[in-house]
Amino acid sequence: MAEGLNRIPPYEWPEGYRAAVVFSADVDVESPYQWANRGKTPQRLGELEQRRFSPRRGLARLVDLLAQFGARGSFYVPGAVMEAYPWIVPGLRAEGHEVGLHGVYHEAMQTLDNARFDEVMDRSLEIYAAQGGRMPVGFRSPSWELAPHQVARLKRPEIAYDSSLMGMDHPYRLDGLTEIPVYWPIDDAIFFRYFGGGRDTSPPTSPAALLEAWLWEFDAVTAMGGLFMITVHPWMSGRASRIEMLRQLFTHISTQDDVWWTTAAEVASWHNSRHRDGPFDMLLDPVRTDF
Amino acid sequence: MAEGLNRIPPYEWPEGYRAAVVFSADVDVESPYQWANRGKTPQRLGELEQRRFSPRRGLARLVDLLAQFGARGSFYVPGAVMEAYPWIVPGLRAEGHEVGLHGVYHEAMQTLDNARFDEVMDRSLEIYAAQGGRMPVGFRSPSWELAPHQVARLKRPEIAYDSSLMGMDHPYRLDGLTEIPVYWPIDDAIFFRYFGGGRDTSPPTSPAALLEAWLWEFDAVTAMGGLFMITVHPWMSGRASRIEMLRQLFTHISTQDDVWWTTAAEVASWHNSRHRDGPFDMLLDPVRTDF
Amino acid sequence: MAEGLNRIPPYEWPEGYRAAVVFSADVDVESPYQWANRGKTPQRLGELEQRRFSPRRGLARLVDLLAQFGARGSFYVPGAVMEAYPWIVPGLRAEGHEVGLHGVYHEAMQTLDNARFDEVMDRSLEIYAAQGGRMPVGFRSPSWELAPHQVARLKRPEIAYDSSLMGMDHPYRLDGLTEIPVYWPIDDAIFFRYFGGGRDTSPPTSPAALLEAWLWEFDAVTAMGGLFMITVHPWMSGRASRIEMLRQLFTHISTQDDVWWTTAAEVASWHNSRHRDGPFDMLLDPVRTDF
Amino acid sequence: MAEGLNRIPPYEWPEGYRAAVVFSADVDVESPYQWANRGKTPQRLGELEQRRFSPRRGLARLVDLLAQFGARGSFYVPGAVMEAYPWIVPGLRAEGHEVGLHGVYHEAMQTLDNARFDEVMDRSLEIYAAQGGRMPVGFRSPSWELAPHQVARLKRPEIAYDSSLMGMDHPYRLDGLTEIPVYWPIDDAIFFRYFGGGRDTSPPTSPAALLEAWLWEFDAVTAMGGLFMITVHPWMSGRASRIEMLRQLFTHISTQDDVWWTTAAEVASWHNSRHRDGPFDMLLDPVRTDF
Repeated sequence: MAEGLNRIPPYEWPEGYRAAVVFSADVDVESPYQWANRGKTPQRLGELEQRRFSPRRGLARLVDLLAQFGARGSFYVPGAVMEAYPWIVPGLRAEGHEVGLHGVYHEAMQTLDNARFDEVMDRSLEIYAAQGGRMPVGFRSPSWELAPHQVARLKRPEIAYDSSLMGMDHPYRLDGLTEIPVYWPIDDAIFFRYFGGGRDTSPPTSPAALLEAWLWEFDAVTAMGGLFMITVHPWMSGRASRIEMLRQLFTHISTQDDVWWTTAAEVASWHNSRHRDGPFDMLLDPVRTDF
Repeated sequence: MAEGLNRIPPYEWPEGYRAAVVFSADVDVESPYQWANRGKTPQRLGELEQRRFSPRRGLARLVDLLAQFGARGSFYVPGAVMEAYPWIVPGLRAEGHEVGLHGVYHEAMQTLDNARFDEVMDRSLEIYAAQGGRMPVGFRSPSWELAPHQVARLKRPEIAYDSSLMGMDHPYRLDGLTEIPVYWPIDDAIFFRYFGGGRDTSPPTSPAALLEAWLWEFDAVTAMGGLFMITVHPWMSGRASRIEMLRQLFTHISTQDDVWWTTAAEVASWHNSRHRDGPFDMLLDPVRTDF
Repeated sequence: MAEGLNRIPPYEWPEGYRAAVVFSADVDVESPYQWANRGKTPQRLGELEQRRFSPRRGLARLVDLLAQFGARGSFYVPGAVMEAYPWIVPGLRAEGHEVGLHGVYHEAMQTLDNARFDEVMDRSLEIYAAQGGRMPVGFRSPSWELAPHQVARLKRPEIAYDSSLMGMDHPYRLDGLTEIPVYWPIDDAIFFRYFGGGRDTSPPTSPAALLEAWLWEFDAVTAMGGLFMITVHPWMSGRASRIEMLRQLFTHISTQDDVWWTTAAEVASWHNSRHRDGPFDMLLDPVRTDF
Repeated sequence: MAEGLNRIPPYEWPEGYRAAVVFSADVDVESPYQWANRGKTPQRLGELEQRRFSPRRGLARLVDLLAQFGARGSFYVPGAVMEAYPWIVPGLRAEGHEVGLHGVYHEAMQTLDNARFDEVMDRSLEIYAAQGGRMPVGFRSPSWELAPHQVARLKRPEIAYDSSLMGMDHPYRLDGLTEIPVYWPIDDAIFFRYFGGGRDTSPPTSPAALLEAWLWEFDAVTAMGGLFMITVHPWMSGRASRIEMLRQLFTHISTQDDVWWTTAAEVASWHNSRHRDGPFDMLLDPVRTDF
């Protein structure tokens, strides 16, 4: 293979591991519904009840499934959800899982100015702190969107990593912010979300079809030494046949002893200690649009 | 498995049954077309003729298919359809099926104020009563949408249950209203509806692919002790290859002797007698949006 | 099986046949592009060149495929296409196929008033007549849409049948107009059309997946004694792997000796001679929308 | 097979080859984001980081995959990308690949007037020339769209071919412009692109499903003597499981010794020397829209 074309070396994982897998869940419950209806009186009980399947059944099923595989996950919880369901964060921590920040009302972060963005970060940290326990180290932006200038605002001492972008398929740093990347094709929401009323225009993907796609991606990205970071939402993937899909996926993952099944926080800790400077540091070059 | 995380006990079914299955059909015929075109002169014969496949062929085929399996279903019929096709309700009752309310003109209930909502409920009961026979006990909201304040209006003596929401995957109560839940991924319309003219943007799912997804869901939700409530529309699922899909699904269901194949009314009756108070009672907590 | 529920008897076919199959093609070429851009100067060569694949390659491939199976089809050609490609209608007739009317510029018929509708019908008949040969007996509305009042205008002596609606899955009469029905799930366009520029939002279906769905529908609708009327567009289904899909479909169809593979004109002729009055006569009941 | 119906003879390839295959890649990186946000300050880091996966990982993976099969591809690079990543064009050329023009900022060409269109062509040639090496011979319009009058502007001495349209499934000439055609169903973007925020409404296709469709198309179009021209985008198809999909596709292609695996430039060179005049010359007939 010739040189050139900016070939970046493969990512290195802790000794003995060829790749890594993180199970993450965005525990949004009704917070996106609150954000979308802010200043209004929401009228759609259909969406609200769908979302509340999460604290009633979905979340516990996912946690129990992880327990069956002896695995820990990374759960991102908006502040409003922590307050409305005060047993969620302590309950997740009691079972050994990581809990990270996810805004207060599942805000569309890229629409906020700096003052408001900082306020949301501060408030979600406050709510978290009020529920005791170890402080969070990770942040995930709702809807996986950030304005470019918000990268700088995320570099605060409390935050060891962001997990909202997908510029590489393994950990990297973006202008000094550690990124534990997500990836749309292994997010459940874009395949499973269906609200009715014309808001979603393609029907939910079958679990069998999605399982095949996720197994392909797991095998391929781990063969390349990358990170397989799936993201689920308990109100969708806590449903019966999606739990079965995940059970089959986890069964396959668990046969790969040399793949590190861990939390985003531990991946970030590894990256920050081992790879803080080097070939995985990316710049947020400005984009010229003045033409 | 640790305590915490609000683990609700599994749902209990009548002795000997581990789960339940309900076949439901929304017999809309042209009523959604009437609602969408209210106050106007509708111009699309394409949609109208598609919808009229239901009373011409689709409904009888579904009823005959159920008969082959010795099964009874729950059919929700708008008042305007009862009047336009006065043989439908008596015909369904004569074959042992449940008939429930479904508005008059397939109204988008969440857009109605209280007076209008009550009027629609009263009028559909009147039309039903005029066709004789046992009074209905169930209501299903068109488009599976309700405004939160309408839960209270549904708690009237005639109505034993609502079947429009999906906050759990087994019967529950929402602020005192018994809910026999539906679920989008086992509704035929979101997979099969195609009207042309740019209204639908993804093509119909193949029956073979949907059969696989529904078998996954049936196996998974009954393994968890839940309710498998499919919903079909005769103008869509009464078509030839969808009847074949249902025949194969029913063949599988019928091999599961310990799954209770019944009507929504009987499930509601069980729930109301056995589970009126307890762990399946959910609150309709208000949602804060004043920020 | 109990009486009631408006059970219409099965459709009867000519002796020896249990069902029928018609291959139909809408030879639109650029006429929908002309209609959409009427009064404007069209700017999208991408769409235009896609559409012109039909006269360059697609149409001949479909005709040759039919010849391999000794089958004749029904081709609906807008007047503007007859004029722009004056070899199409004579060429199709020379190979034994039916040619039917399809507007002049692929007009959205339901948007036309009576005078304009009649004008389009007259003009397309004139163009057809000028190309000699046997006169057409069939009409298919572009986009499969008609205004209800246009049913009456179609009852003119030249027209033996319409093929635009889908109120039954075998021939029927609607207010006295013979209908040889189409069906969206066996139309190629809703699965294969992709123009780019944001107009189509779901990608083309794979031929293998669509073949499976069409085989299910063929087997199911012929088992019920119905009509399997597929519709293709040469610029889409004349493409390589769709031709292969059709070849496999035709191979299966050709094994069913007791299914009548014929043209829409012959099906209409059968219906008009055998079933002019009876259980397959449907009324175009007015739809109440004044509430 | 009867005469008539404008049957054009099969395309002839260089001796010994029955068909051809071209791997092409549109190396857009952030240029479409720049075009969409021109005159504005772009706010979506989510899209930008997704796109930058291309120069970080995707492009090198695709080039390495081609190297494993000893194959060369055709890469179309906007001028802004050549400037922002000045190692791309020299790097591709060093590995033997063709590089072609693709605008400066991935302009929607059909929206430009003649002066601006010429300016974009000139500017992209200048940028290219400044990076040394052999001059480009091919042009591909961003988004595969051109205004009809732009065909004439593309007939400039530097340009041996255009590759933006799909009027045939083998090389042809359109009003004297050599066209090496593309084809939406073998473009990766319409199956894989997913940006979030409501811009894409159907989720990404699984690589396994797309592989099956592409194998069908490869087998069918090469059996008919056509050109199989796939197009990929490194930020999408450079992802792990899509690389695996391409690896399986290439494995199949490489078993077909009598299919010419080459670049678009060489196909154009063949066409221009052998087929400059003849049955594959198509006219850009004006389209009547004044009615």
